[in-house]
Amino acid sequence: MKNILVIGAGRSSSSMIKYFLENAEKEDWFIRVGDMNLALAQEKVGESSRGEAFAFNALNATERWAELLHKDLVVSMLPASLHVEVVKDCIKLGIHVITPSYISNEMKALDEEAKKAGVLVMNEIGVDPGMDHMSAKKILDEIEEQGGKMDSFESFTGGLIAPESDNNPWNYKFTWNPRNVVLAGQGGAAKFIQEGQYKYIPYHKLFRRTEIIEIDGHGKFEGYANRDSLKYRSVYGLENIPTIYRGTLRRVGFCRAWNMFVQLGMTDDTYVLEGSENMTYRDFTNSFLAYDPHNSVEMKLRYYLNIEQDDYVWEKLEWIGLFSDTRVELKDATPAQILQKILEDKWSLEEEDKDMIVMWHKFTYWLNDEFKEIHSSLVYIGHDQTYTAMSDTVGLPVAICAKMILNGTIKMTGVQLPIYKEIYEPVMKELEDMGMKYHEKQVR
Amino acid sequence: MKNILVIGAGRSSSSMIKYFLENAEKEDWFIRVGDMNLALAQEKVGESSRGEAFAFNALNATERWAELLHKDLVVSMLPASLHVEVVKDCIKLGIHVITPSYISNEMKALDEEAKKAGVLVMNEIGVDPGMDHMSAKKILDEIEEQGGKMDSFESFTGGLIAPESDNNPWNYKFTWNPRNVVLAGQGGAAKFIQEGQYKYIPYHKLFRRTEIIEIDGHGKFEGYANRDSLKYRSVYGLENIPTIYRGTLRRVGFCRAWNMFVQLGMTDDTYVLEGSENMTYRDFTNSFLAYDPHNSVEMKLRYYLNIEQDDYVWEKLEWIGLFSDTRVELKDATPAQILQKILEDKWSLEEEDKDMIVMWHKFTYWLNDEFKEIHSSLVYIGHDQTYTAMSDTVGLPVAICAKMILNGTIKMTGVQLPIYKEIYEPVMKELEDMGMKYHEKQVR
Repeated sequence: MKNILVIGAGRSSSSMIKYFLENAEKEDWFIRVGDMNLALAQEKVGESSRGEAFAFNALNATERWAELLHKDLVVSMLPASLHVEVVKDCIKLGIHVITPSYISNEMKALDEEAKKAGVLVMNEIGVDPGMDHMSAKKILDEIEEQGGKMDSFESFTGGLIAPESDNNPWNYKFTWNPRNVVLAGQGGAAKFIQEGQYKYIPYHKLFRRTEIIEIDGHGKFEGYANRDSLKYRSVYGLENIPTIYRGTLRRVGFCRAWNMFVQLGMTDDTYVLEGSENMTYRDFTNSFLAYDPHNSVEMKLRYYLNIEQDDYVWEKLEWIGLFSDTRVELKDATPAQILQKILEDKWSLEEEDKDMIVMWHKFTYWLNDEFKEIHSSLVYIGHDQTYTAMSDTVGLPVAICAKMILNGTIKMTGVQLPIYKEIYEPVMKELEDMGMKYHEKQVR
Repeated sequence: MKNILVIGAGRSSSSMIKYFLENAEKEDWFIRVGDMNLALAQEKVGESSRGEAFAFNALNATERWAELLHKDLVVSMLPASLHVEVVKDCIKLGIHVITPSYISNEMKALDEEAKKAGVLVMNEIGVDPGMDHMSAKKILDEIEEQGGKMDSFESFTGGLIAPESDNNPWNYKFTWNPRNVVLAGQGGAAKFIQEGQYKYIPYHKLFRRTEIIEIDGHGKFEGYANRDSLKYRSVYGLENIPTIYRGTLRRVGFCRAWNMFVQLGMTDDTYVLEGSENMTYRDFTNSFLAYDPHNSVEMKLRYYLNIEQDDYVWEKLEWIGLFSDTRVELKDATPAQILQKILEDKWSLEEEDKDMIVMWHKFTYWLNDEFKEIHSSLVYIGHDQTYTAMSDTVGLPVAICAKMILNGTIKMTGVQLPIYKEIYEPVMKELEDMGMKYHEKQVR
């Protein structure tokens, strides 16, 4: 019997734990699921005789070491910054380990040690990063095999609300961490390269420099640039590509409305508003507008942001509650924290709501003096509020990869990404069987 | 004979050192001027028999202590963060010390110690902070004496080019540290209070929320908000004032044009442009604009920032060189560093140029059920490029204060500001005699 340890039983672990338990009999696995919150782990394991939930503090070195002993594989679903200590122990004990997170510099530094120990440390094998790498690298490898020369690569991913649950003017709800949504794009200019020219977009212009993307059968989306597209040149072996751009998808019209929050200064997380607990949402909005006793908050905002009478952005701002007399209640909160609360009042999922993951890649390249273009897209809707699209697309690639390591299909060692055919091919095949199928289209 | 030590012989020390040397005979002073750069100190001291220039590293504790022995007063013109060690030594040795800088928390913590030692540590006695405190507090005290109740206080200061040297479309040249000008307003929202309502302006809106101010005989200026107006409530004893606003003055039209740099992202100092040394100013501008092979950089910028054909902001942008083929040359520079270089090419002072300090306060208050308003303004032009308006207004209040400490007119101890009548009255009187006269006007 093979022993699997899952660290962390949060929202993104649901589908993965389900996969492990469903395949445990056939593959002869036993799965231990540890979380600081025992109830959370118990809920995920249920009555299975092949699994066991336990209270676990992975940050306690003694507790961690004892638990790692006699495991065959570890999946760390901890916050990204906490993987490293787990991985160091796994390398010492010769246990393979998987995380869905970006490789940190600290993690990268363990590569040689892992190789020496014959241990595979697989990272970035969730959805973004993860399925984006695998689906892109598959086509990039095919183009290279044919002898094509890459001209451009664009890639967009978004966590959205499914069309059947889309019933508000923003065409958006929080299907993932709200704080990350509020702070998205902050902390430096967005960087990319287009036709060999470096391009920089400051945060306050980010949501006005969007691209419209249409996906067959799913309508139009818009994408805004991610912070750093440049680093993907080396990840994908595209050092000399003239154009590379990565972005985040929203439904059309979202970004123009979100930009109003940015312009007002409502997404700022660097200072607190004195006395915020006594403010209303309307007071909050007014604190970013000039003093004027003769005009309403609405009129001042329209004038300040140049919103015309019949502009559809207005409905979004009214609907979200910017002018309501609801109390902020949060004490000494930052603008971003208050905005998050306002949004959570309106963008929280209802019982029956389903989420949706959308991904879209565009490749242009030269092949035998002909200019070619391929689009590849994924639109995947969740089952319910436990087995969400996010949980499936983050957790199932991890689970399938785990299976392939345990059954010997994947034989690599070292600190790795899923950018090699021996990994992405079998993982994507099985994801396809589960409904996560990319539609590839040779446009020209 | 009284011994004065001046630490730092940079641009802002010129007028002060001149004052000390001119009054040395009469007051029986001897002045030692120390600077890391010996030549700089020598240039300021000249041939005077009452002064001596020497190479001095104030950060070296042994060197510093030896130099401080047997001094009667020390003036520290070091960068703000470096005063504290000097002040600690002065307190131990029982020597009064003056700095023109803002009181840091570390400095404030020395108050009790200074009082015990009978030492005065006078701070914020340059121009801004300094003359702003003194000229404002004078009127605030008068209003209080009359029994008035403050309604609002607004205060603006600017370091500008004198009208006779004003010969470019921006009506601006660098009369002070260019880097501070480029980074002005960054690092958090501007905060103030108006009619009892807190107001916050994010950086990317700062230069569009200006106020127009007219000063009799000197025309119109515009002011943008300083970072933190709120802290002046406690400094001036105005805890419950409904409106307090501090800002920076420019000539009308400057801020709207400067906002173009902000909107493009050119003032960002948080990342470097790869390969900046090979860019031209035009390439730099283009890196903030979307790729488009069919339109010029000029057309793209006009479109992006919505600049109409006949908008006078355009002349400013063209004149400053945003579209020129001049090479950036700076290697791996931040946008802010590159912008600074572009501006320095055009905004540097010419040989005969003179600078100008402009300050304007507005006070409104209730007196016997009547609503009253006072304006107070200072417009002061420098003599030449050594004895600039900035050097006079920073250094002469320090020098006069030094005299009054040494001759016993000022008898305070502790870590202090020049907000008490016993200080501001004699200092302002002598500044007035030297041409730094405030014009006070009862508007109603």
